[in-house]
Amino acid sequence: MRLPEEFYARVQGRLRERLAADGLDGVIVSAPGDVAYLIGFFYAVNERPVYLWFGADGSRIALVPELDAEYAAAQGVHAEVRTYFEYPGVRTPEQHLADAIVSFGTSRARIGVTGSLTLAALTRLEEALPAAVLQRTGLLGELRLRKEPEEIVFHRQAAAICDDMLAAGRSLIESALAVGRALPTEGELARHVIGYGTDRMYADYDHVVYTTKLAGGLVYAGRNSARPHGLPSSRRLEVGDTLILSLGSAVASRFVESERTFVIGEPNGEQRAYFEVARLAQQVGTAAMQVGRTCAAVNAECLDVIRDAGLGRYIRHRQGHGIGIAQHEPPWVEDGDETVLAPGMILSSEPGVYVPEHAGYRISDTVLVTAAGPERLTSYPRTLEENVIAV
Amino acid sequence: MRLPEEFYARVQGRLRERLAADGLDGVIVSAPGDVAYLIGFFYAVNERPVYLWFGADGSRIALVPELDAEYAAAQGVHAEVRTYFEYPGVRTPEQHLADAIVSFGTSRARIGVTGSLTLAALTRLEEALPAAVLQRTGLLGELRLRKEPEEIVFHRQAAAICDDMLAAGRSLIESALAVGRALPTEGELARHVIGYGTDRMYADYDHVVYTTKLAGGLVYAGRNSARPHGLPSSRRLEVGDTLILSLGSAVASRFVESERTFVIGEPNGEQRAYFEVARLAQQVGTAAMQVGRTCAAVNAECLDVIRDAGLGRYIRHRQGHGIGIAQHEPPWVEDGDETVLAPGMILSSEPGVYVPEHAGYRISDTVLVTAAGPERLTSYPRTLEENVIAV
Repeated sequence: MRLPEEFYARVQGRLRERLAADGLDGVIVSAPGDVAYLIGFFYAVNERPVYLWFGADGSRIALVPELDAEYAAAQGVHAEVRTYFEYPGVRTPEQHLADAIVSFGTSRARIGVTGSLTLAALTRLEEALPAAVLQRTGLLGELRLRKEPEEIVFHRQAAAICDDMLAAGRSLIESALAVGRALPTEGELARHVIGYGTDRMYADYDHVVYTTKLAGGLVYAGRNSARPHGLPSSRRLEVGDTLILSLGSAVASRFVESERTFVIGEPNGEQRAYFEVARLAQQVGTAAMQVGRTCAAVNAECLDVIRDAGLGRYIRHRQGHGIGIAQHEPPWVEDGDETVLAPGMILSSEPGVYVPEHAGYRISDTVLVTAAGPERLTSYPRTLEENVIAV
Repeated sequence: MRLPEEFYARVQGRLRERLAADGLDGVIVSAPGDVAYLIGFFYAVNERPVYLWFGADGSRIALVPELDAEYAAAQGVHAEVRTYFEYPGVRTPEQHLADAIVSFGTSRARIGVTGSLTLAALTRLEEALPAAVLQRTGLLGELRLRKEPEEIVFHRQAAAICDDMLAAGRSLIESALAVGRALPTEGELARHVIGYGTDRMYADYDHVVYTTKLAGGLVYAGRNSARPHGLPSSRRLEVGDTLILSLGSAVASRFVESERTFVIGEPNGEQRAYFEVARLAQQVGTAAMQVGRTCAAVNAECLDVIRDAGLGRYIRHRQGHGIGIAQHEPPWVEDGDETVLAPGMILSSEPGVYVPEHAGYRISDTVLVTAAGPERLTSYPRTLEENVIAV
């Protein structure tokens, strides 16, 4: 679960070029995903900041709390590691960072910071670097938009695991039905599929790392599924339920989503109708993910399928989002995002239909944009016929 | 798992008074913990912002994404809820928020924002409210420092569950030993205790909510335990291991930690010596959590126990941190925090001794500061004798 040296050399080289082009002497990287992307340090996020100084001159200092020093060393981080003792510290972490930057002679530098930086951290940086000009840069976000070949390999591997998590969830229900046992609760089913995904990671990979999680899942059935981000509950599944398994997994923090809607037992007319609209919208929206189109246009074409079916009032969210080191990241497949699709982008395609007091219907694939058209990395069957769990 | 109406009336009343005293017309609240604290809306955090406009005039508007509208209504949120469709939106969420603020006639207002706001969100707010003065305020953090009686009730309930999670973890090991079965891996043990805690929440409470999690756990044994924030691994526990169970749980997002160090089988001299230093430091540091003392002084007294024992090189972190709606929050029990302890503060007390290539030793309690002295909310046994798992 490690990206090769060449990957880091390439993305670091690209950032150096862009810094020079933008007239920046360096960038202070603070978002966990950006740090992981550039130097391969994955860590548990808490109030103790991790900073990467990345100079246009090639200097790279990762400043980490003492707590994580050995963990950083074990990961073979692609930067020199320095430590500060603790947060908040008699001297702030930002003052320790400034020491390093000044040692490179760049205290008066023009330094980029990302939009994810908090005001509290910015204030401390400004105090620690009074002679520097700190200005926002979107460079890191831009670099991460198109995935490298080595990353796509990991996304593919995650997709295979995520599809198998869906199968594991379905099996748990089928095996209960087969012996007449009570069906699992939403919470039990969530734990089962997350446990399955996590076990697979440890079984299949050495050096398991993550930024936010290895595998995750929202499981909701019946009325609870009508809330797209509700919590899995203690409600036991029932025959007749519509069930959404909304699963995610990540290899080396390269995420995918694979989400399917199931019906337990013979679907009624209402279930058939809503399912088919959600399925068709997802099919149309996925096919629309072509190089050269904008996210806004793709989203509109996708959601129009739902609106044209007369179900516009049941839309609760956009078609999808970018997916990479973060489970949700730019670009956003939404009306407000005019990003033009390019090869190497990876997007979720997950329009949903949510009928209050009835249920929700959502199918999501993780889609790689290629010159030859959209390629679904996730491949679990999508039709209602294939996703009826027979009782 | 709901705080009563009186709680929200009281904390909102206090914030209104403080806004008036600070000359602020209102505050834009954006941190999930602050939103949950003030109006009782708990939600899954993603790129879609949730904003609370809280006016000195009593106006309160929670702006939530369409996705969460029904979930907010179901929680009985203590503010008027308005929605925006999606992120990023053709109009930004911040523009929708500005509409509400302007409708109260406060567009030229002096408005507080918290240090947790990102630069990206600040930029969008400034664009949406060009006539307003946005200035940083620490009011929310100050309000949350001392816990209300209703919150302390939930912290106590979480402490009972967290102690029981420790017992559940120990039982899993003991039951394997009793029948000669292989011991669990770190990952299996982590999943078992987290599952136990989660099940308890659903069994004991209606209206289960959380900001970041219900129950969590880091489990590490042997050499892996020498890294305070390492990941649970697929390594199987062995007789002779030092084992840290570092567990947390939250009722209504009121967190506690309960962490203990165990030894599987008869401890050797090294294990006895390190354990005793960690235990004594924790005892001394906990007893030092007296009203009127500073966090820095308490931390120094605690860590001096480790330094005086000649083990200063094995310190990797401060004594502890505040704990409340967030698992880690101010004040910080560290050299750089001069906050004076006051009744109602809740702190972790968790000094550790980490010996590279050997193991780590850490005991953590969640401690309520009272006029009568520190009160440990967690009460699982702490001595080595009680935490040897006999083989």
